[in-house]
Amino acid sequence: MQKQLLIIIAGLLLGLSTTLAAAAEAITSAEIIRQAELIRDQALQESEAYAIVEELTMLVGPRPAGSAGDKAAVVWAEEMLRSLGLANVHTEAVTVPHWDRGSLAVQTISPYPQLLTATSLGGSIGTAERGLQAPVVRVADVKELAAIRGDELANKIVFIDKHMERRQDGGDYESTVAGRGCGPMLAEQRGALATVIRSVGTSEHRVPHTGSMSVGGNVAGIPAVALSNADADILAYQLQRNEPVTLSIFSSARSLPEEQSANVIGDIVGTDKADEIVILGAHLDSWDQGTGAIDDGAGVAIISAAAKLILDSGIKPRRTIRFVLFANEEFGLSGARAYAKAHETTIDKHVVGMEADFGAGAVWNFSSQVDESRLSLVQRIAKVLQPLDIKYGNNEASGGADISPLRAAGMPILDFVQDGTHYFDYHHTPDDTLDKIDRQALNQNVAVYAAAAFIAANSNEDFGRLTIKKPDHWSCDALTNK
Amino acid sequence: MQKQLLIIIAGLLLGLSTTLAAAAEAITSAEIIRQAELIRDQALQESEAYAIVEELTMLVGPRPAGSAGDKAAVVWAEEMLRSLGLANVHTEAVTVPHWDRGSLAVQTISPYPQLLTATSLGGSIGTAERGLQAPVVRVADVKELAAIRGDELANKIVFIDKHMERRQDGGDYESTVAGRGCGPMLAEQRGALATVIRSVGTSEHRVPHTGSMSVGGNVAGIPAVALSNADADILAYQLQRNEPVTLSIFSSARSLPEEQSANVIGDIVGTDKADEIVILGAHLDSWDQGTGAIDDGAGVAIISAAAKLILDSGIKPRRTIRFVLFANEEFGLSGARAYAKAHETTIDKHVVGMEADFGAGAVWNFSSQVDESRLSLVQRIAKVLQPLDIKYGNNEASGGADISPLRAAGMPILDFVQDGTHYFDYHHTPDDTLDKIDRQALNQNVAVYAAAAFIAANSNEDFGRLTIKKPDHWSCDALTNK
Repeated sequence: MQKQLLIIIAGLLLGLSTTLAAAAEAITSAEIIRQAELIRDQALQESEAYAIVEELTMLVGPRPAGSAGDKAAVVWAEEMLRSLGLANVHTEAVTVPHWDRGSLAVQTISPYPQLLTATSLGGSIGTAERGLQAPVVRVADVKELAAIRGDELANKIVFIDKHMERRQDGGDYESTVAGRGCGPMLAEQRGALATVIRSVGTSEHRVPHTGSMSVGGNVAGIPAVALSNADADILAYQLQRNEPVTLSIFSSARSLPEEQSANVIGDIVGTDKADEIVILGAHLDSWDQGTGAIDDGAGVAIISAAAKLILDSGIKPRRTIRFVLFANEEFGLSGARAYAKAHETTIDKHVVGMEADFGAGAVWNFSSQVDESRLSLVQRIAKVLQPLDIKYGNNEASGGADISPLRAAGMPILDFVQDGTHYFDYHHTPDDTLDKIDRQALNQNVAVYAAAAFIAANSNEDFGRLTIKKPDHWSCDALTNK
Repeated sequence: MQKQLLIIIAGLLLGLSTTLAAAAEAITSAEIIRQAELIRDQALQESEAYAIVEELTMLVGPRPAGSAGDKAAVVWAEEMLRSLGLANVHTEAVTVPHWDRGSLAVQTISPYPQLLTATSLGGSIGTAERGLQAPVVRVADVKELAAIRGDELANKIVFIDKHMERRQDGGDYESTVAGRGCGPMLAEQRGALATVIRSVGTSEHRVPHTGSMSVGGNVAGIPAVALSNADADILAYQLQRNEPVTLSIFSSARSLPEEQSANVIGDIVGTDKADEIVILGAHLDSWDQGTGAIDDGAGVAIISAAAKLILDSGIKPRRTIRFVLFANEEFGLSGARAYAKAHETTIDKHVVGMEADFGAGAVWNFSSQVDESRLSLVQRIAKVLQPLDIKYGNNEASGGADISPLRAAGMPILDFVQDGTHYFDYHHTPDDTLDKIDRQALNQNVAVYAAAAFIAANSNEDFGRLTIKKPDHWSCDALTNK
């Protein structure tokens, strides 16, 4: 019954689309909204998103930059975008770093021996074959570490014991992740032999959260690992007893020669404004511990399924809608930089960008960063999203990492904020697997991206340009100089 | 304020107890119940249980039979029972098997290479240094495996893909665990090279459930591993595509020479019926993956904290209450057998047994297996437990594993059934850590065991004897012969 109804609707759309395609420039504002609503409602019923992320996680699995999985993902993604019917499907080469975590053993050796569940941080170096053993010094957070001026950390292992709080907007990530990003460097500058952090994450299970750390500056890098929350509890409990706790770390993490990866790109080619580009982005790489379902298989699936629904509507958009699956977001944004460089001459033709890289939770907030004079267009989109329980926030969105170089060059952005209550339970852990994805919430995301992209690509007006500014460069030194 | 009140109550009890101890046999039924209720309510306010399981998990951690952790646990437990003020605290030697899981790597190697999160089953053997590679054959459950009569499993890896359902009473464990216990043996008998099972557990996280498998019979043992649910999903998905899936397994699991461990025992010595024993049991050993919080640190804490509360009441019970922390429950019940043997001549003096080995969830059901003529005593206990939302079930309880040899010899049992909704999320996984324990639910358990033991040790009547029967011997061959 429901299936028959869909066939009838599809038939109607097909008939309709022939007419519309022939006179794309004549599409009225009201008609754009009506079509966007149809696409939105179709997505809510069903989309290809779940099948896409299922295939990516079950067949390709982990795909960290430079790995065999990374290369397999590129092959898979090109084939996938092609099978959806996108035009100009191709790859653009990206040189990526290749870090390998090797194996790791972390244990308290005295006074209470216990093996701890840990994972090396991306960019950390290995230990000698016999590992390293040293007393542990605990700091509450990276600020406490940065404030240390004496030599009390010399030849010690620093333990950064900052808990990350669970919030819907994931808002405690910023203040916690500095411990991962800068902690190892600050510890090394103070003579520490290694850094151990409480995972930057909210998981209540025995899974440590990996992620990249800053290397460079005046230091060579040190072994650095994250403990699961349960294991950080063990270490903290042992330290509370006021007896010196000695930890042993063995790690064979290492950096390998750079590898070739690729951004994978496909278009829905526009009609009368084909040179103007509405860009939708997600990243194809993942960390190595999980299968990259939440981060960012979901994003790949959301924008790809949105492409399929727009194609299936049969209506050719006036502007080109481009779908970019970026290489290596996790370990230095290589794909984002390569895209901005390769498309330098047409950057000002990227009229708006949207990125999906915050998991598979339902969208609950929509913010923008567009020219103030174009907020009426944003409001038209907001009205189409309103029935999905999405509120408009403000015009101060910061957007995703992969489209940040384009934004810095003046491209407006639309930011669809997903429910992040559980995002940091899985983020960068072995637990980032397909079963964490709710199919209905995933389809709600597809509805959002498809409807917004459709409106953006068809409306007469655009979003203007942003004042060009330099990309945010954030430095660990700022912590010390504060 | 609350603390002061407790001191006053303690003082009152102390005064009261001097009188009562002098005339223990004169304690009336009404007085027993009133005291049991006081003990119960004190436990609900606070007990030593959380601090006990905290110390055990944070300082000793994993303690599988024969390991260094096992020996450390025995030392810790003896000291702990002594510090509570128990009498006759001592250890009784138990010879235990010593199996070591070594390291493990499981991966699909074709057509879609992916590393899988797995754990070796207790008793499984290792592979050759280069591992073993073979095509996978899936069976839905152990019955399907047992029904195979041909040679289709020769030189294959068998995948037993039985899902365990979540239930409050943990009732799907029985039908699922046969796959772990018997699957490897049945597979080996049919010529398989190795067995892979979907974990016997309900965890929705990337943690595989270990546990012991049957070895012996006409087979030598084969490598056998459990996949986490998410990883079993990956393997099942790949197999559904109707292409042969080849798996690679490397394991260095092995059996080492037997080791010495011990049952750790302490008493509250009775007065006029001191030779009659009310026995409370839990097991001190744990699996090696977690820190043994739920299984069975919680049980150790519950019965030990119950002991402390009964001691703190200042009332000497008429019968002896014995607290036994059994060695090696997980890998063959060595401690249970050793206790029954060492106390062979006084087995008929064990008037009732209670075992805590189903985690830390609140008790919701109370069943018994006692002489039918003594159900009025059971009902008196049930009435004291009723305010804790505990319903009496029936007189068909089967009791725990560690007291099963005593039950087989005729000892009645009381069975306090905990909420097991989440027990099999953590059971035998790395995720069995302290943070999974709810302090309030733990104290509710202490209230139950303390009150019940107090009544059992003080009442004029006892629970009679059960018809002596042989312990249940369950054989994997039964599956084939069905």
